[in-house]
Amino acid sequence: MINLSHELAANVITPRNRDSFKGTYGHVLIVGGNANLGGAVIMNAQAAVQSGAGLVTVATDLTNKTAIHARLPEVMVVDYQSDLTQTIKKADVVLVGSGLGEEIGVLNQVLAHIQPKQTLIIDGSALTMMAEQNLSLPNAKVVLTPHQMEWQRFGEVTIADQAREDANWEALINFKTEPILVLKSSATQVYLKDDMYQLTVGGPYQATGGMGDTLAGMVAGFAAQFQPLGPAVLAAVYCHSAIAEDLSKAAYVTLPSTIAAAIPAYMQRLAQESISKDPVDTKQEE
Amino acid sequence: MINLSHELAANVITPRNRDSFKGTYGHVLIVGGNANLGGAVIMNAQAAVQSGAGLVTVATDLTNKTAIHARLPEVMVVDYQSDLTQTIKKADVVLVGSGLGEEIGVLNQVLAHIQPKQTLIIDGSALTMMAEQNLSLPNAKVVLTPHQMEWQRFGEVTIADQAREDANWEALINFKTEPILVLKSSATQVYLKDDMYQLTVGGPYQATGGMGDTLAGMVAGFAAQFQPLGPAVLAAVYCHSAIAEDLSKAAYVTLPSTIAAAIPAYMQRLAQESISKDPVDTKQEE
Amino acid sequence: MINLSHELAANVITPRNRDSFKGTYGHVLIVGGNANLGGAVIMNAQAAVQSGAGLVTVATDLTNKTAIHARLPEVMVVDYQSDLTQTIKKADVVLVGSGLGEEIGVLNQVLAHIQPKQTLIIDGSALTMMAEQNLSLPNAKVVLTPHQMEWQRFGEVTIADQAREDANWEALINFKTEPILVLKSSATQVYLKDDMYQLTVGGPYQATGGMGDTLAGMVAGFAAQFQPLGPAVLAAVYCHSAIAEDLSKAAYVTLPSTIAAAIPAYMQRLAQESISKDPVDTKQEE
Amino acid sequence: MINLSHELAANVITPRNRDSFKGTYGHVLIVGGNANLGGAVIMNAQAAVQSGAGLVTVATDLTNKTAIHARLPEVMVVDYQSDLTQTIKKADVVLVGSGLGEEIGVLNQVLAHIQPKQTLIIDGSALTMMAEQNLSLPNAKVVLTPHQMEWQRFGEVTIADQAREDANWEALINFKTEPILVLKSSATQVYLKDDMYQLTVGGPYQATGGMGDTLAGMVAGFAAQFQPLGPAVLAAVYCHSAIAEDLSKAAYVTLPSTIAAAIPAYMQRLAQESISKDPVDTKQEE
Repeated sequence: MINLSHELAANVITPRNRDSFKGTYGHVLIVGGNANLGGAVIMNAQAAVQSGAGLVTVATDLTNKTAIHARLPEVMVVDYQSDLTQTIKKADVVLVGSGLGEEIGVLNQVLAHIQPKQTLIIDGSALTMMAEQNLSLPNAKVVLTPHQMEWQRFGEVTIADQAREDANWEALINFKTEPILVLKSSATQVYLKDDMYQLTVGGPYQATGGMGDTLAGMVAGFAAQFQPLGPAVLAAVYCHSAIAEDLSKAAYVTLPSTIAAAIPAYMQRLAQESISKDPVDTKQEE
Repeated sequence: MINLSHELAANVITPRNRDSFKGTYGHVLIVGGNANLGGAVIMNAQAAVQSGAGLVTVATDLTNKTAIHARLPEVMVVDYQSDLTQTIKKADVVLVGSGLGEEIGVLNQVLAHIQPKQTLIIDGSALTMMAEQNLSLPNAKVVLTPHQMEWQRFGEVTIADQAREDANWEALINFKTEPILVLKSSATQVYLKDDMYQLTVGGPYQATGGMGDTLAGMVAGFAAQFQPLGPAVLAAVYCHSAIAEDLSKAAYVTLPSTIAAAIPAYMQRLAQESISKDPVDTKQEE
Repeated sequence: MINLSHELAANVITPRNRDSFKGTYGHVLIVGGNANLGGAVIMNAQAAVQSGAGLVTVATDLTNKTAIHARLPEVMVVDYQSDLTQTIKKADVVLVGSGLGEEIGVLNQVLAHIQPKQTLIIDGSALTMMAEQNLSLPNAKVVLTPHQMEWQRFGEVTIADQAREDANWEALINFKTEPILVLKSSATQVYLKDDMYQLTVGGPYQATGGMGDTLAGMVAGFAAQFQPLGPAVLAAVYCHSAIAEDLSKAAYVTLPSTIAAAIPAYMQRLAQESISKDPVDTKQEE
Repeated sequence: MINLSHELAANVITPRNRDSFKGTYGHVLIVGGNANLGGAVIMNAQAAVQSGAGLVTVATDLTNKTAIHARLPEVMVVDYQSDLTQTIKKADVVLVGSGLGEEIGVLNQVLAHIQPKQTLIIDGSALTMMAEQNLSLPNAKVVLTPHQMEWQRFGEVTIADQAREDANWEALINFKTEPILVLKSSATQVYLKDDMYQLTVGGPYQATGGMGDTLAGMVAGFAAQFQPLGPAVLAAVYCHSAIAEDLSKAAYVTLPSTIAAAIPAYMQRLAQESISKDPVDTKQEE
């Protein structure tokens, strides 16, 4: 077990290369938000945009378009019933499942068209549907972001057994494509390659609806701009709760949209630490 | 008569247990907002979310969906014409009536499906319709939040008589299920068990449309996360006006949405007081 | 000529009476916003709400509903094609014309149903339509808020002649109902009873679209809560530009929505001045 | 090559004339935003409004109306399918192309109705469509705002060749109407008359979707209020990145909407510098 530390995140979030452009930071496609649950993709998208993804597109039920643009003009919106396949092709990172409800047709399209070089983050109701329909993980760089109940369904590890690290490893070995597991709970863990990383920041002020949607959006935004994938996921998980912990000094509950708004300032603090600690690297980047 | 004091609220709003999750803090269902009065449920929902309810769903006229999500992505939205019955089942607390207008069919569904273990807050036009239709209180943990005119209609106590505490008690005794009464006026009172609690904070800067919708949302949010119900209601009523009083130092009128935005910071101040006063409790919670 | 002074506004904006409620501060009905110009009524309504009107209803093209509620949940929205007549009855102050375009049918309904005891503020395209159709002022307490081109059309005073105070008085005498004239320009004037009040605050940072819509909304909000009407109008005109002048220290252009957001703090500063200057009055109000 | 300097921008952004009105600062028409890409015109419009344009109208797919008004009540919205021709006539500056997708019919209407005295800013997909359809620049004061790929398509200069100043000049000479070229990259350049201006502020925190839409909106807003056109474009390009550089001290990524919100304060700082440096000018303006 390794503690998910500040240093680990600071090593990922380094100053950007001067000669970069938005293409450098990847294109995130968010697939979710049925007619009732459009708020979930708004929270995904806000987190991805504020994290610094180069481009963010949301494929959703079209009745969600206006609310998305009213909050996030930076985001493109397409109808997940008609325009999904061609949109998947353009993405570097696909996040599927937040607020998707029972839209199995949409999920199946994502699973059918995702490519091996793409990162696929599977969240929320996508995990529930995959468990119910016995769907396999596709051939892609997969990140799973279940809460405990979803992991019980999809990973077939009871919530009681999830307390044992080896039980979770056993479930993960069954998947051929070596997914990264972000197992969300009041003590979130990340299972990556051969190591389990334990989150030690954050707290119960995060126990509110939509918190996971913001985390999934941050994972997508970090995966789009930082390579390799593993440390990017760890940094996203750390930053999400570290920001909440900061905010909790003045907030009984730290709302998802408040956390998302605080991402750029927090990331810049980490990036500046990496400058002051490591002047050689900085010169290389300039 | 007991003054609704700061200490009383601070005893309710204690630090959260570290091992909690969003389910710990309850699911609030808000039922209201006809085609013209959607703003009322936005104010309900913002207050419930900012208060720290675990989950918040709004059942409303569907034309209100986009405005709700544009302000509050944390909230789920369902059509109160088609999806109400199944949604009531999942709720811990139901708030009905803000901006409901004359949608008697919607109200009847709530009254028919509410369960004894659930908390039901009855506000605004729901009280007027119940008076007009002579509807009985259902078997549930009921909180009534009328202003003076609504209490005259529903409780059948004239506004003049409402100045006499015993007149209000007499009306309450007629209800079999012992509802809690929050009687809103420029000197709001709460009738709970055998005691009347007098609000002594707040002021005329709160005399603006929507103030009651925010209060009802706070009552719902507090009822969802703090037990037992009585002190939770008292704390919500106190905090609502105490926040307004704070804001009024720099505002001639304190708008409902401004009060709601200030809830998390105010609650955290109260929670921190309870830590500094009572270190033993804090340890138990960790 | 009298300078529109700080003292004049401070005498109007006094601390609220403790035993007041939202009905004390009046019901403003805003009628305007055709299918393209919905932003105008949003700015009207934000200004009226932030000014402290007790209740604000917007009667508009229904396609504007969602944008209004997304910004202002405190406001009620009705369809000006179907629900206008019954809504006018409930209002204390009616503001008609901002963004109304050529909706002459809507204007005619307002003119036909307004009552003598109600205040009617006539703005923007309502003035142009009344000039084109030779419509008379109705029997009500009327405030006209034209810019120079609108006053040329409706008052039949050329822009050149508007520089002469007596030319404007001559035009006003032709109206039987003694309207108050707010003649907007880079040096706005108010014609009230026998005096002309000259605005001396404000500046060219206000020269941007929507500025007049915010002013009209403030006039409505002040008229709803402060009596008599004349000083209320003067105070609204003064505060609108005084706020802009304050903001201009840090803004090259002072946008209408930014001015509106600053109203409650500015009014509270004026109200506190009136306390410190006049302790006797304060006691009376408590 | 001339460095795009702070002084150059400060000379453009001088204090406004006291006797001005909104007509003095021009009418910007933004044409763009298809059914999926409405966010682009929101960012255009926010930048134009915050820059101080007198009036801003957006001609767009009507499904974008509500999101635009929910963010920007100051803006008028028309349907670009039905109301474009008559709207072009009223504009001083037309910005076409942000988020326009493949709406060639809309683009053709703009090219057909633009007048020689009007400024036309051609952005994004308009440039791509003009390249694909071999469309000529119309007779107007044209500003082109391509990124490198768009300039390769429209100017027929390969991205590699764009590094050579003379290659860009050769392409520009082919256009009869002497357009101003804003060639966006990590080191943006402006080609104006006989000089190339090199941007030296800004950085990779700007590498995010929508950055160009905000720049195009600022160019439009500056062109509407500052004459002549050339220095206005230079000032807009400078301010856009200078604001981003300021914000980047506390933000890893500087979002387009955050930059737009900071425009009025930044412009006012420049205007105040021009006062302190040049008291003679200031007196003339008063």
